[in-house]
Amino acid sequence: MRRAAERLAPIVHRTPVATCATLDRLAARSLFFKCEHLQKCGAFKYRGASNAVLSLAPDVAAKGVVTHSSGNHAGALALAARMRGIPAHIVMPRNASAVKRRATLDYGGRIVECEPTQAAREAAAAAVVAETGATLIAPFDHPDVIAGQGTAALELLDQVPELDAIITPVGGGGLTSGTCLAVQGAAPRVRVFAGEPKGADDAARSKAAGQRLPQTDPRTVADGLRTSLGDLTWPIVRDRVERVITVTEEEIIAAMRLLWERAKLMVEPSSAVAFAAVLTDEFRALAGIGRVGIVLSGGNVDLDHLPWSGAR
Amino acid sequence: MRRAAERLAPIVHRTPVATCATLDRLAARSLFFKCEHLQKCGAFKYRGASNAVLSLAPDVAAKGVVTHSSGNHAGALALAARMRGIPAHIVMPRNASAVKRRATLDYGGRIVECEPTQAAREAAAAAVVAETGATLIAPFDHPDVIAGQGTAALELLDQVPELDAIITPVGGGGLTSGTCLAVQGAAPRVRVFAGEPKGADDAARSKAAGQRLPQTDPRTVADGLRTSLGDLTWPIVRDRVERVITVTEEEIIAAMRLLWERAKLMVEPSSAVAFAAVLTDEFRALAGIGRVGIVLSGGNVDLDHLPWSGAR
Repeated sequence: MRRAAERLAPIVHRTPVATCATLDRLAARSLFFKCEHLQKCGAFKYRGASNAVLSLAPDVAAKGVVTHSSGNHAGALALAARMRGIPAHIVMPRNASAVKRRATLDYGGRIVECEPTQAAREAAAAAVVAETGATLIAPFDHPDVIAGQGTAALELLDQVPELDAIITPVGGGGLTSGTCLAVQGAAPRVRVFAGEPKGADDAARSKAAGQRLPQTDPRTVADGLRTSLGDLTWPIVRDRVERVITVTEEEIIAAMRLLWERAKLMVEPSSAVAFAAVLTDEFRALAGIGRVGIVLSGGNVDLDHLPWSGAR
Repeated sequence: MRRAAERLAPIVHRTPVATCATLDRLAARSLFFKCEHLQKCGAFKYRGASNAVLSLAPDVAAKGVVTHSSGNHAGALALAARMRGIPAHIVMPRNASAVKRRATLDYGGRIVECEPTQAAREAAAAAVVAETGATLIAPFDHPDVIAGQGTAALELLDQVPELDAIITPVGGGGLTSGTCLAVQGAAPRVRVFAGEPKGADDAARSKAAGQRLPQTDPRTVADGLRTSLGDLTWPIVRDRVERVITVTEEEIIAAMRLLWERAKLMVEPSSAVAFAAVLTDEFRALAGIGRVGIVLSGGNVDLDHLPWSGAR
């Protein structure tokens, strides 16, 4: 993790930490928002993608990288590859949002279109690997990606003294497990929590069951959190996350609007999930927590389709 | 100015400076965005209001403060007064936006409603002064307000070495003239520019004419920039601003959308005016400017009425 942090320091933004008295009052705690929506590519994903790309041996890297992600990992991997001067092949479903497609192209990625099913994505990625020899960089279940994502929490611990807890949103678990590893190494006293949409609550259900249960039919506005935990991320979430707190769609949208309107933090719905969790009675009832770090994971929203505009 | 900075240091946010490679490419320069939209109250106005409130003698302060502003100054003065434990009377036209009314109330201000004309505002404020003995704190034409606003540029000069220029939006001129004074004292080599809407271009017209010309019929989405320069701010803008660059409504909205979509900086239209000016051919043609500081003045937008949603 320290090695990842040293590797990334010259190329990632050391994102600021924001505070807001109004939101502190609502949460009845002191909140410290780690602004990864201000990271390059607009999300923490640039950390993990860069760490993975920079960890490749030169002859392997030269053949390029590939991923099948319609989310922030796509743009992040494209930019990380461009910074190293190697090709990036991004498999995307035809229905990926315009803003994410445009960002991937702007960052120099080559888009490979496929049908919007998991099987089609994996087949398209495998075809690219067979054809080019490129290395598949998974969006979260990859040790270098996990280590890279954890550097956001390392920075936060360095920027804000005396945190009692850190909370992240949880989807595939890359950010959450990276945060666990960062805390374990740098500040083991800090408690780690995760926020998750009730409509994609595989992490909460898995922890309750004591075994990994996949997400079959995710239904949530938090498009970064629809995936299931992976082979590497699940045991870390199982053992090191104190509690996964689930929130409704209404809570997510209300939390997102509060972050925008009161704190001017332009985050995507997935980021609002962690703040929404902090506002729940369940989290408020926890004792011994005064200072909470909240990782705002990203800010890639489609400005023509904001989640509250449909409700008017 | 240094005294204002020392007075304000413990109570204002030292706002971060953001950078964005994509926007640098568009501007063909290195841009450093001073994030005053992340200031308390969501705007630089909290600096000037706090400096003015803290500069009052105790017996004067005890009688409270009053202003007639429908903009960010209203909420800023309300919070500054609450921090000092004194009353704030905010004269507002009946048609002030819901978000600004709510913010003023949340910050503990007492709203005094009036008709939406300048005469009615001034009459209502005078009535409050006569009744309560409160001190009128003008939104920009006030020496302590100007000094307070200048502290944003002082911080920026401290945060970013070797700036060649700083640009602010110009309305009443409080931020612009404060920036001029800060630069004059701390870094006189730095060139100061202002961006202004073509639909409220009194500063540009005044500089061209060599005399102050008021704004009679402002028409711009940049609601913070509809006012005219004041007695104190005009001579500073006349003598110390190298050039006022005007921009169209389309340029303002496009710049605002770029800041949101590409840099995740949730600014209001008035802030986008300065960035829009940097993107003009007029500014791009200026020689000897590599590193530009842009003061993003505020982030108080009505999320139900974004300027681009009407165009769809």
